[in-house]
Amino acid sequence: METKSSGVAGGGSVSESSTMILHNAVVVTMDSDCRVFQNGAVFIDKDKIKAIGQSPDILQQFSHVAHHILDLHGQILLPGFVNTHVHTSQQLGRGIADDVDLMTWLHHRIWPYESNMTEEDSYISTLLCGVELIHSGVTCFAEAGGQHVTGMARAVELLGLRACLTDSVMDSGDGLPPSWGIRTTDECLQSQMKLYEKHNNTADGRIRIWLGIRTVMNSTDRLLLETRDAARELKTGIHMHVAEIPYENQVVMETRKVDHGTVTFLDKIDFLQENLLAAHTVCINDTEIGFLSRSGVKVSHCPASAMRMLGFARIREMLNAGITVSLGTDGAPSNNRMSIVDEMYLASLINKGREVYENGATDPTAFPAETLLKMVTINGAKSVLWDNEIGSLEIGKKADMVVINPFSWSMVPIHDCISNLVYCMRTENIVSVMCNGRWIMRDKMILNVDEEEVISLAKEASSKLLRRAGIKLPSRMNVIH
Amino acid sequence: METKSSGVAGGGSVSESSTMILHNAVVVTMDSDCRVFQNGAVFIDKDKIKAIGQSPDILQQFSHVAHHILDLHGQILLPGFVNTHVHTSQQLGRGIADDVDLMTWLHHRIWPYESNMTEEDSYISTLLCGVELIHSGVTCFAEAGGQHVTGMARAVELLGLRACLTDSVMDSGDGLPPSWGIRTTDECLQSQMKLYEKHNNTADGRIRIWLGIRTVMNSTDRLLLETRDAARELKTGIHMHVAEIPYENQVVMETRKVDHGTVTFLDKIDFLQENLLAAHTVCINDTEIGFLSRSGVKVSHCPASAMRMLGFARIREMLNAGITVSLGTDGAPSNNRMSIVDEMYLASLINKGREVYENGATDPTAFPAETLLKMVTINGAKSVLWDNEIGSLEIGKKADMVVINPFSWSMVPIHDCISNLVYCMRTENIVSVMCNGRWIMRDKMILNVDEEEVISLAKEASSKLLRRAGIKLPSRMNVIH
Repeated sequence: METKSSGVAGGGSVSESSTMILHNAVVVTMDSDCRVFQNGAVFIDKDKIKAIGQSPDILQQFSHVAHHILDLHGQILLPGFVNTHVHTSQQLGRGIADDVDLMTWLHHRIWPYESNMTEEDSYISTLLCGVELIHSGVTCFAEAGGQHVTGMARAVELLGLRACLTDSVMDSGDGLPPSWGIRTTDECLQSQMKLYEKHNNTADGRIRIWLGIRTVMNSTDRLLLETRDAARELKTGIHMHVAEIPYENQVVMETRKVDHGTVTFLDKIDFLQENLLAAHTVCINDTEIGFLSRSGVKVSHCPASAMRMLGFARIREMLNAGITVSLGTDGAPSNNRMSIVDEMYLASLINKGREVYENGATDPTAFPAETLLKMVTINGAKSVLWDNEIGSLEIGKKADMVVINPFSWSMVPIHDCISNLVYCMRTENIVSVMCNGRWIMRDKMILNVDEEEVISLAKEASSKLLRRAGIKLPSRMNVIH
Repeated sequence: METKSSGVAGGGSVSESSTMILHNAVVVTMDSDCRVFQNGAVFIDKDKIKAIGQSPDILQQFSHVAHHILDLHGQILLPGFVNTHVHTSQQLGRGIADDVDLMTWLHHRIWPYESNMTEEDSYISTLLCGVELIHSGVTCFAEAGGQHVTGMARAVELLGLRACLTDSVMDSGDGLPPSWGIRTTDECLQSQMKLYEKHNNTADGRIRIWLGIRTVMNSTDRLLLETRDAARELKTGIHMHVAEIPYENQVVMETRKVDHGTVTFLDKIDFLQENLLAAHTVCINDTEIGFLSRSGVKVSHCPASAMRMLGFARIREMLNAGITVSLGTDGAPSNNRMSIVDEMYLASLINKGREVYENGATDPTAFPAETLLKMVTINGAKSVLWDNEIGSLEIGKKADMVVINPFSWSMVPIHDCISNLVYCMRTENIVSVMCNGRWIMRDKMILNVDEEEVISLAKEASSKLLRRAGIKLPSRMNVIH
């Protein structure tokens, strides 16, 4: 594994045992039968789950071939969570754009920040973000489209995570920083092809490269169409911010001559496909929900950033229409907790609450815990086109999993284990995380990097980056130095 | 301190040093000048803050008289948080009523639960709840009206917290469990008087007894009026659930002959006073906001339980009308995270988001971080009528404070310290808590009780209670035993 300039590689001597039994756990499989083994076990061979079932059965069958046998003492075992919309290269910008309007956010904070990043910044940012993702039980994420994918890939490889990485490309749009400029359509396409060739299917297959479209407002029709065709040819996905704000739909109606907004336009140009992961998707009407459903588009719902900037996405309607909806944290300057655990809690609450405006009263029975758990596991896996290997604990799938300790003040008493996972669990309850058959966190200790060193690097790099970008934040309160 | 039957008293040999300096901290005072000392210190004498200012000044002035000098290494010092609506005796019922409709929640889960509690259950429930409150930085809370105040008082005294305890009384209303029955008005008043005499101003002055009104639907006019008069005479507060759901307003309009709802009725009978803490207050119109404002009523906003059960409270409008709004977690079967830290995060997000429905778009500038911090500190103190002694770090006030470690993956980088406290901080960042000049948590270790023992007692007591109450939860998913 490469560490390059940072020297952050942790001392975690990860045991390369090829077979392992985890037993005496509440195993929440998230398989299509929704099986939960009250005293369950899994048998892992290298990177894959070879058997799953009752603890006594698994122990009897596999103890003699297992190199390691680990008693989980009644803790909960779940598939690793999938965060389907996260800007890893924005992690160093956490807190630079809080409580400001959207134009200040974009023009005076985020674009200056992003346009001044180096590849090393992106590497450090992704390391810091990755540490937070792992602590919140994430084993796989979809980068939303960011800066310096090569920096991200170095970090993901080192951390041991699984990811679909995406470059942020724009070939049109007003107001971009002069130093950044707009790339030509060809440049956008070629740079993504190069990234694909360089990084796709690297890091033991944990890294995949997706194609990116930032927004319809920053893309020519040619970029959209050639991205669609290239993704089809490469058999990869496209990650795109879709129908975020009413203004976006207005612009699309005026410039693209359609009668509603982005989704209608994308349908018209035959862009909506099964491999499209549409983020946010807040401003859509019933017809457009029909378009998304019919074409198999996946939606990443990001409740925290939606509440702050965008509005209430029509999640109930999308789920009812059969759309695969998963959850994302968005980037640190939009959220700022990069925790899919908190996002589950939020998604349940705001979507129950939203019913007030739709039907006159909240609906406490809407969005039950099971639905939320699906969103962060199997729906997440489907959203990143990886459900043949991840998203549930099943024979033949990758050993991506999370160990949760529910026996603390934050989750006790446990009368309803499944609902406690959604409504009580916090990142504090996540103790160990395995990705691709290897532990990447044990007992809350990140194994592949030195957490303190990452934090120290992040502090330094982020201060320098803000100075370079000329970003100055007004002081809050009456600070006495 | 009494431990009685539980044997949970921790080994924490709390140092009874009478003077102490905490220095080298970012001291966020929350005083009326919003002062933040970048390198600040406080000097504490017994239970009170005697001096506050720049670290070098405080050290120079008081080092020679301080028994203890503690370097906080740049961590953040804030006033202890105030949770203004929490059902401590419901903690053992966490998870018993998730994803069910309001009538199931009340009739088949909460009432059976509450009506079958013993005083010992309430004691254990409050211990468990208190542990969670302390971990989330709370030093003072307002009990929303619960079961067996004497049990609560024992737990609060032992934990070292500050609290306004309130009995749940009802002298009317349909559907109550037969075993519980409705008390007469006189019984309701007399039992509260007895509790006041027994517990008010006990535990070194940390416990105050308030009067309770569960809801207008469970109270006769006489109970309301005599509670109002008794509170005035005793100079204490009244805690009441107000205007929670549209149905409540309907009932009030029909039975009390007013043209809107609970707040209009309470105004009519001259019940609205400065000492009323109104919880939730979701279903109110502009006129009623005017009534609350004019009479100085305080409002406890509970965003999580509102999203689940009640709807969006009109918090912006109430703040604009000058009403003191604070935050509460509500009870564990309504939330289920009893974390005022999460409630701050939620309150900001859902109230920014609510602007979509009020004004057509979210307002990211609404509810800035400073407002949220006020809500959980000084507004909380005002809500519990204790702001002469708590709610801000000022000379002469009680030493109730929280030490926050912002140097972890969840809060780094810190470009905007104040906003990071609201948008990034989690309970994980809260390391130490002091109440009344005494540490009640140090380095995440609860000092006055043995946390593991409390958890163990809670598991046992809650299982027994559910059996006694005949509460059976349907199984979720496909559990294989």
